[in-house]
Amino acid sequence: MRKGAQTREAILDEAGALAARIGLGGLTIGELATRTELSKSGLFAHFGSKESLQLQVLDRDVERITDFVIRPALREPRGEPRVRALVDRWLDWASSGGGCPLIAASFEFDDQPGPVRDRVVAAQRDWMDVLTTVCTTGVGEGHFRADADPRQLAVDIEGVLMAFHVMHRLLADPAAREHAHRSIETLIATAR
Amino acid sequence: MRKGAQTREAILDEAGALAARIGLGGLTIGELATRTELSKSGLFAHFGSKESLQLQVLDRDVERITDFVIRPALREPRGEPRVRALVDRWLDWASSGGGCPLIAASFEFDDQPGPVRDRVVAAQRDWMDVLTTVCTTGVGEGHFRADADPRQLAVDIEGVLMAFHVMHRLLADPAAREHAHRSIETLIATAR
Repeated sequence: MRKGAQTREAILDEAGALAARIGLGGLTIGELATRTELSKSGLFAHFGSKESLQLQVLDRDVERITDFVIRPALREPRGEPRVRALVDRWLDWASSGGGCPLIAASFEFDDQPGPVRDRVVAAQRDWMDVLTTVCTTGVGEGHFRADADPRQLAVDIEGVLMAFHVMHRLLADPAAREHAHRSIETLIATAR
Repeated sequence: MRKGAQTREAILDEAGALAARIGLGGLTIGELATRTELSKSGLFAHFGSKESLQLQVLDRDVERITDFVIRPALREPRGEPRVRALVDRWLDWASSGGGCPLIAASFEFDDQPGPVRDRVVAAQRDWMDVLTTVCTTGVGEGHFRADADPRQLAVDIEGVLMAFHVMHRLLADPAAREHAHRSIETLIATAR
């Protein structure tokens, strides 16, 4: 990797951590300059504008979700094992480190039309499609009933993940993972 | 109501609408001054500080949720009808108008310690307690099994509501309400 690209990526990771903490909307070049001790003009040279910085942070976050959650799950056998792996990896992802800019942005940007919202929508559509497709393999493999609705199951799983985020990250409920686990078991049992 | 209190409340409603759109973190006295065409010094006189403004917007939002969602649901018969009313009123609430600062703040402030986060946590704890208590009336009335776990049911319902928020407000999925409805029917059927 060229030095410039490495630097850019390191800055993006800092920017992502900052966005996860204060929200993508608060992520300005000025804030990032203060945090990284890089010059504002240098950051402008790298990212061009606040909006471009926000979009690149989102893209980097999506890459990291893909690497940490989706790719490993897709290596599991199709059907129920793959559904479980996707959920488990997501719960690990949401439990670890400084948080996920995309999740917060899904609630922060729902009423703010523009390129950032468009990118958040695209990322969430892709994620719901991955969830739905993986649930569909459960029907294909005969793990779930033929008339199970993969889209409904995907929406239900998304709900379990969002509730876990609130119970674990916001309320620090020690039972959060156990509740999420039981919810998923019930959903899978109902789909069987 | 005294004129001062009326003015304060009208400004809080504007501030709440702005916070729902851009996030509570972006809600500064300066932004609000631009939006309301009131002077910054006048707004400082009303609210004292950005943080105090944010806290008062949260309190006002909690009041509105209580009036719009919780009070009407508590007038329904205990048990299943009350659970359904609470869910339906919440879905109406999340579908209507400019959005709810508390929901966005639950994802925006999870990693930002301080008085605003504390208030968000308190409000979400109260909400989860209301949900749990209402689910408990379902056991008490014999609508749900004696060994149904009201807390688990409350977490599952919270997940349905959060997923609805993403599917409806962010993705504008026309099937969002239908999916939420089916999820709730399955949860209630499983608890019976």
